[in-house]
Amino acid sequence: MKVELLSIGDELLIGQVVNTNASYIAAQLNTIGLEVAYISVCGDSHEAIIEALQTAHKRASLILVTGGLGPTKDDLTKEAICDFFDDRLEENKEVLAHIMHLFETHIQTPIRPANLTQALLPSKAVVLKNGVGTASGMWFERDKKITVFLPGVPREMQYVLEHELLDRLGGLSSLSIRHRTLLTYGLGESAIAERIDAVVSDLPDGLSLAYLPNFGRVRLRLTAKDHDQKKVEALLQVFGDRIAAELADIYFGDEEQGGLAPQLLNLALQKQLTVASCESCTGGRIASYLTAIPGASSIFVSGLVAYQTAQKTQLLGISPELIETYSVVSTEVAEEMAQATRLKTGASIAVSTTGNAGPEKGDSDVDVGTVFIGISTEEHTFAHEFNFGNLRERVVEKASLKALEMLYREIAKK
Amino acid sequence: MKVELLSIGDELLIGQVVNTNASYIAAQLNTIGLEVAYISVCGDSHEAIIEALQTAHKRASLILVTGGLGPTKDDLTKEAICDFFDDRLEENKEVLAHIMHLFETHIQTPIRPANLTQALLPSKAVVLKNGVGTASGMWFERDKKITVFLPGVPREMQYVLEHELLDRLGGLSSLSIRHRTLLTYGLGESAIAERIDAVVSDLPDGLSLAYLPNFGRVRLRLTAKDHDQKKVEALLQVFGDRIAAELADIYFGDEEQGGLAPQLLNLALQKQLTVASCESCTGGRIASYLTAIPGASSIFVSGLVAYQTAQKTQLLGISPELIETYSVVSTEVAEEMAQATRLKTGASIAVSTTGNAGPEKGDSDVDVGTVFIGISTEEHTFAHEFNFGNLRERVVEKASLKALEMLYREIAKK
Repeated sequence: MKVELLSIGDELLIGQVVNTNASYIAAQLNTIGLEVAYISVCGDSHEAIIEALQTAHKRASLILVTGGLGPTKDDLTKEAICDFFDDRLEENKEVLAHIMHLFETHIQTPIRPANLTQALLPSKAVVLKNGVGTASGMWFERDKKITVFLPGVPREMQYVLEHELLDRLGGLSSLSIRHRTLLTYGLGESAIAERIDAVVSDLPDGLSLAYLPNFGRVRLRLTAKDHDQKKVEALLQVFGDRIAAELADIYFGDEEQGGLAPQLLNLALQKQLTVASCESCTGGRIASYLTAIPGASSIFVSGLVAYQTAQKTQLLGISPELIETYSVVSTEVAEEMAQATRLKTGASIAVSTTGNAGPEKGDSDVDVGTVFIGISTEEHTFAHEFNFGNLRERVVEKASLKALEMLYREIAKK
Repeated sequence: MKVELLSIGDELLIGQVVNTNASYIAAQLNTIGLEVAYISVCGDSHEAIIEALQTAHKRASLILVTGGLGPTKDDLTKEAICDFFDDRLEENKEVLAHIMHLFETHIQTPIRPANLTQALLPSKAVVLKNGVGTASGMWFERDKKITVFLPGVPREMQYVLEHELLDRLGGLSSLSIRHRTLLTYGLGESAIAERIDAVVSDLPDGLSLAYLPNFGRVRLRLTAKDHDQKKVEALLQVFGDRIAAELADIYFGDEEQGGLAPQLLNLALQKQLTVASCESCTGGRIASYLTAIPGASSIFVSGLVAYQTAQKTQLLGISPELIETYSVVSTEVAEEMAQATRLKTGASIAVSTTGNAGPEKGDSDVDVGTVFIGISTEEHTFAHEFNFGNLRERVVEKASLKALEMLYREIAKK
């Protein structure tokens, strides 16, 4: 069964919004054995919507459409749907009652005529209830093809997908599809490929490997497909573990376990260690990544963003002479930041960053992109120097990932 | 001229990677007067690539393709290109020299056979140099249609686009396309539509308006198109200002000026004010948003992430009795956090957050989603209570945006 995801919206075609809906739906469909063959985007015009629906119906037999169902004038999807399916809009009493209920209980602003038009739906559609918004999902079947329309607001799309759609689609595939993505740091795509060449030559049918390089790390994704779910899981286990063994020095766990931040927190929890951070150039991103994980509060004690130079003295008591002597972006200051933070917060391990993310040179003479990352534990305190290039966003992102990697290695040693 | 963006990659079809390349390219093309009509994604197989190229060539006359040009075995694009354009691979001496130079100067690991195959390119292609990687861009012309292949790694794609492609495409369109996106907070799509109905009825040809709701805010995008660039700019100015005037109480500037964080920093700079943050449930995200902006260090003094309850005492000296009496998630503690941070850091204004982002109840009895946001200035200190629902990521995001909004309002008052 060929599946197509179609997203409607000029905001996608002008690059204002990134198509996260398509990624979310694709991943959800994989969990019920459905693979997406096409993702497409069209604009907010009657002709564009009709043309995109026609193209999709020629090549796919399950089509999931998102977007274009809001109450304002730029939303033309419902009219195009009626045109395409030779249907007409009629008021759905149940949906009307739901909209009025939502306004009374949650939205708490007066209901407007435009909101009421959200209850006008094509008569042939099976309505998929939207418990968190006013735009209903719709299900059509014609010529053995299924077309589903979902709201474009991510939270509403997710609600309808999870509560109304996945169960209905669950029977369509008996395939099991699972992914296992190994996270590696510190080696390029080609060098990795050489090291795991023997394993890759052994990969059986139904198991494939892809390389995903970005931000100085390479992710290796194994995808297994089979009608036997146990076989799928065994393939990922066996071959994933073989690759991990070949790459033991650069492998940092699996993305499906949540990536570096949650694994770091888990490892610290097992070892009964606590963590604190003191950031300058990364500006809170390390703290933000760690605290994004549920349960972080039992391991992550606290973080400091000592952004201006004087604050390193103000908040942590780092001596102005040290900063004067070595410069604020230096091994010595990174070490002192990490150690002072560990002592002040009582955490077992502290990590620090000081550097210049650009675009201009700041309170030091170092090149844009230079970052020192410090680590302090009861046993020792040290810092390493890096250069992460001259694009501010990349410097911050790479420095934050590198800091998490150094923290992870240190926790693993304990 | 119809433009299609085609992205190749299984990682997109399984939802592992979000298609940021398409958004980036679409926005860049708009700046040179080109509008994207179609965005599509296909998988990493010979058949899928050929089929997608055929579909694109039927409906578009400029096709920009990204992805599938890496050195490892999962990349089949070059073979498909040869098939599609009836071409063959041959070694490009200049590209080979560039790859060897890159390895000597930047990559600093031994060059591998797989890297050298990156110099094998279709003989009919005009090569677009990739200064930051080994995968070259390629330009084909056939039957009055242009097809361009770009690397999939975002940084490399951006390099080739900016240095090799935009100038070549610049002559294709005489149209000016500009967007102006007004940021509003606090009112729903339908209510906004009613308030600006009179302006919307007045919109002339060549000017359109779209509503983009998400995370409790609505963005209003005006798009102007014309062959006369001055007219385009005047339309956005006049109608954007009229809408902004109607929505003065909920309008927070334009997204093209960078969004809330940079505008907040600009306003603070004008008024010579400095800012500090003390975050609990938002875990560093407010600091992270502010410090992402170039030049933040002259306004943003420092931030604290007092994550564990005891750290609110440890770092800021908040009395354990206050926390005991009112609970750690309370107006009183939010106010005290903001005030203590302002005094400790010497900033003119401090913002604080304390709440429970879930999924479980923490060190207080409040419902998941409850967040108190505090503000402290020399004149006064106060806090407001919010509930941002029960999804951790949404609670953190909405609380961070709301905190920036409150900070902005406070700075504007000064």
